[in-house]
Amino acid sequence: MFFKVKTSEEVFEILGKFEPLGEETLPLEMSFGRILSRDIVSHEDLPGFSRSSMDGYAVRAKDTFGATESLPALLDITGEVLMGRIPTVTVAPGQAVRISTGGMLPEGTDGVVMLEYCHLLDEKTVEVSRAISPQENVIQPDDDFKKGAVVLVRENPLRPQDVGVLAGLGVTEVPVYKKPKVAIISTGDEVIPVDQEPRPGQVRDINSFTLSSFCRQLGAEPFILGLCRDNFDELKDKIEDGLQMADTVWISGGSSVGTRDLTLKVFESFDDMELLVHGISISPGKPTIISRIGPRAVFGLPGHTASAMVVAEIFLAPFLARLQGEKNFPKKIHHEVDATLSRNIESASGREDYFRVKLRKEGNQLIAEPIFGKSGLISTLVEADGLLRVDRNMEGLYQDQTVRVMVFNRYKGGFI
Amino acid sequence: MFFKVKTSEEVFEILGKFEPLGEETLPLEMSFGRILSRDIVSHEDLPGFSRSSMDGYAVRAKDTFGATESLPALLDITGEVLMGRIPTVTVAPGQAVRISTGGMLPEGTDGVVMLEYCHLLDEKTVEVSRAISPQENVIQPDDDFKKGAVVLVRENPLRPQDVGVLAGLGVTEVPVYKKPKVAIISTGDEVIPVDQEPRPGQVRDINSFTLSSFCRQLGAEPFILGLCRDNFDELKDKIEDGLQMADTVWISGGSSVGTRDLTLKVFESFDDMELLVHGISISPGKPTIISRIGPRAVFGLPGHTASAMVVAEIFLAPFLARLQGEKNFPKKIHHEVDATLSRNIESASGREDYFRVKLRKEGNQLIAEPIFGKSGLISTLVEADGLLRVDRNMEGLYQDQTVRVMVFNRYKGGFI
Repeated sequence: MFFKVKTSEEVFEILGKFEPLGEETLPLEMSFGRILSRDIVSHEDLPGFSRSSMDGYAVRAKDTFGATESLPALLDITGEVLMGRIPTVTVAPGQAVRISTGGMLPEGTDGVVMLEYCHLLDEKTVEVSRAISPQENVIQPDDDFKKGAVVLVRENPLRPQDVGVLAGLGVTEVPVYKKPKVAIISTGDEVIPVDQEPRPGQVRDINSFTLSSFCRQLGAEPFILGLCRDNFDELKDKIEDGLQMADTVWISGGSSVGTRDLTLKVFESFDDMELLVHGISISPGKPTIISRIGPRAVFGLPGHTASAMVVAEIFLAPFLARLQGEKNFPKKIHHEVDATLSRNIESASGREDYFRVKLRKEGNQLIAEPIFGKSGLISTLVEADGLLRVDRNMEGLYQDQTVRVMVFNRYKGGFI
Repeated sequence: MFFKVKTSEEVFEILGKFEPLGEETLPLEMSFGRILSRDIVSHEDLPGFSRSSMDGYAVRAKDTFGATESLPALLDITGEVLMGRIPTVTVAPGQAVRISTGGMLPEGTDGVVMLEYCHLLDEKTVEVSRAISPQENVIQPDDDFKKGAVVLVRENPLRPQDVGVLAGLGVTEVPVYKKPKVAIISTGDEVIPVDQEPRPGQVRDINSFTLSSFCRQLGAEPFILGLCRDNFDELKDKIEDGLQMADTVWISGGSSVGTRDLTLKVFESFDDMELLVHGISISPGKPTIISRIGPRAVFGLPGHTASAMVVAEIFLAPFLARLQGEKNFPKKIHHEVDATLSRNIESASGREDYFRVKLRKEGNQLIAEPIFGKSGLISTLVEADGLLRVDRNMEGLYQDQTVRVMVFNRYKGGFI
């Protein structure tokens, strides 16, 4: 079967067709960082009553009109507002009531004079040295939210203040998109568990750990299914396990042609399988295979850690956002900075190249220094602060050119 | 007692004197996002053997010298390298061995010819159409890391690739700084639990939820101690509980003078108490109290959610980074963007003002739109994308001026 290598735009289009996962309901205290699945509408006015925003005296504003330091208004103190209580005093013309920040305005009052403009003459009389206008220093019953207003919009991650407003409205059960579950399989006869001592020819399993950490970073829940030999039945069993327990399956390894062919063969042995991508015109990361088995996306990622991580940063990060309800796809997932390139870099025209770069400050300037090294090394990735894309239609970038770097630091909510 | 309001610089200096918490050891799979507490030194060469970075034939480079498409070198195939095994074949001049990406180079070989430059004449003979130089397509035993090299530097958060390199080196137990435990107390007679229906004069507890979410965002572990009446004994009990179980105690509420005085009185009743800050010259957030009780920082935060969150963004975020081992204090915690201010804003000279701003794109331009509203409202904070600082020595900012906005989106590792 002939299969054309796809451009990254084509891959995004294919991945964008996978639907977000379903919703679930979480207790408020567990909702931080999750993606809201429904608009939240206020079912009441907030705060729901007229509230003082200052410490001072609740008065009729009219009684203060014309008051100055040299000609203060004299008001009779008739009581005090207790916090959290409906005031028992009402206020007639010429009267004032002591009130604290957050207290409820008593009937008859329409403003609060700040404490610093009030001077007690005796226990019963206060001198007000400044006029206030009606509603001054008062939070109206619907100042925060009106009943029926859309308070939070679905498909956004919940920030601390968003969780706060849910608390304010008494929303104790929060509708959010489900966390994607990702089954991770590491293949290769040369790969051994991390707690074993490698003999010559063997390497410890790195990809299970980079990919599972990557999932956590993006708000997904990884399931490490462990190592798998280069064996048809073993790989098929593992993928079946993954499809049972997770929403997507990621197989790493198979950077050698033989393993890649094996992964493909196993994909083809599933009844309801559609091969979506067989190779992407990016470097590193070209030997990526993507299939749909039933409703789930199954990825055959390159075995080289750096290659697998580039594919993860570029395609899997927005894909996980998509599964979590993101409607814009691909979403901008990386924090980006402008930097000056420290040297020329060459790139093969006709494919998208991703260079790992280190960022450093020189005076006020941010310098992007490309890190060269085989994609089989992890050290280059550890040294790097981000990725630099060279587009398909370019043959390279020049020293001293300003380039835009996708920084590895990343926030689940995406960046502006 | 007279206590001078402190500048934010003074507050940073005070907070910077608190020492990072101790270390703990975590299993590798739980270490993502945590802050490394010790340098990690490679105890072995990685990968530890000569490894092919391509699919192809392992050869003596010398045998390919001069080979071209029109004049290929003919080599005898003497076997195949099995993945994960020490090769059993050795290679003499004029011989070649089939090898896959990641395979170990057999004795006698010093390079790999890529498959696409190899043409099988028969099962035993390969035609090589391109010369390779010694070590071409070979990863050296210490290419990734040399024995004794510092692989990861302490006081950095572990990214997916950092967890990967720990896996590669077999570091299954990872030394990290402890997560700060934060006890959160919400005070105020008017505050009721979120699952209750407020009567007029009452409001639901918002701050427990904004502050605990904020802790999670910064990698700290919140303990919600719940509501506390404006009562000396009750508050003292709660603070004692907090000091028992947590590394720092945050009391919110007390935006009214009365509650603030109560918090101060309770602080003063502790034997080993030092009052560090009584008011900060910022707005909002001025009525912030900070004390040291024993070895722990105890914060009295403003009751208004927006004020408490500004104090959290500016002071508590770097403080939590500090407790987690950050040596630079204050660390730059926010992602910052340049934007054009949509209108003039006035600010009182002599204090640092923080405006909530909304960001929107107009063509290629990012516009920062100030959101005005009382700090008693949470809606302003929900609408906002970030904060804009107006320095102490400025009286405002002008429309169309370029300003730097601290975006709420934030990554625990800090930003460049």
